[in-house]
Amino acid sequence: MTREEKFMQEAILLSGQSIYKNEGGPFGCVIVKGNEIVGRGYNKVTSHNDPTAHAEVEAIRDACKNLKSFQLQDCEIYTSCEPCPMCLGAIYWARPKIVYFANNRQDAADIGFDDSMIYEEMKSPIEERKIPIKNLGREEAIKIFEAWKNKPDKTEY
Amino acid sequence: MTREEKFMQEAILLSGQSIYKNEGGPFGCVIVKGNEIVGRGYNKVTSHNDPTAHAEVEAIRDACKNLKSFQLQDCEIYTSCEPCPMCLGAIYWARPKIVYFANNRQDAADIGFDDSMIYEEMKSPIEERKIPIKNLGREEAIKIFEAWKNKPDKTEY
Repeated sequence: MTREEKFMQEAILLSGQSIYKNEGGPFGCVIVKGNEIVGRGYNKVTSHNDPTAHAEVEAIRDACKNLKSFQLQDCEIYTSCEPCPMCLGAIYWARPKIVYFANNRQDAADIGFDDSMIYEEMKSPIEERKIPIKNLGREEAIKIFEAWKNKPDKTEY
Repeated sequence: MTREEKFMQEAILLSGQSIYKNEGGPFGCVIVKGNEIVGRGYNKVTSHNDPTAHAEVEAIRDACKNLKSFQLQDCEIYTSCEPCPMCLGAIYWARPKIVYFANNRQDAADIGFDDSMIYEEMKSPIEERKIPIKNLGREEAIKIFEAWKNKPDKTEY
């Protein structure tokens, strides 16, 4: 077994938690730096009343807390299923060096998790989305952006 | 001032927190049910070492906790900036009835927040992504999906 297979096995073990513990969907994730697991997560959406508590988001939050950083430079992400758009977005913000996934989005759709609908919505123009999304109040909000731009002591990311 | 403008003003006020409190980027969000604000959030990425702590994710988590639900049925989301792909994904999972945003993704890019790169990556085939993403271990992981499919007492979402 390669080191990558070993770490993926850990993610798959976490994905099985939902079967026994009833905490959420069957998804698990580990984050590795060097040869050490620095973050773990599994889906807790239904038990924690948190639609953002996907395995990858949980693992990213855990790893960043442990590493005391808002970035996952040089880290590897092992997730038991291809990330949904929310989790893929979280991964881009965290900036790991590579992502490994086991089940794919079609496998997820086959057991009732329709990530592919959300992937389609991402590509749709705003005016054609299933959830209406409307512009309002830009003339006020842009003043805060301007203040940010001119703020000398900001932490950029 | 319409009720929608009033609620957006609350989101914009929250977006200004970052200017004074140095907790993260200049983004704020409120979630409304009926005529009541049920969730609030602002960006805490850099102060909390959490790349997922965007205003919308924070507000969704807060509203779901307050409503004791993993869904935001009949809720309205007011966010001071067009949601990034992570936050848009979170919104689709939370299923509110409508989203209002003030600044747009180009405004965000103009002050250094490059959501549009992530939007482009979402559309790219997996093999062309900037962060490499590889398939590994599906034959083991699919067994957990099959166990989920056959689980009689699961909570679906």
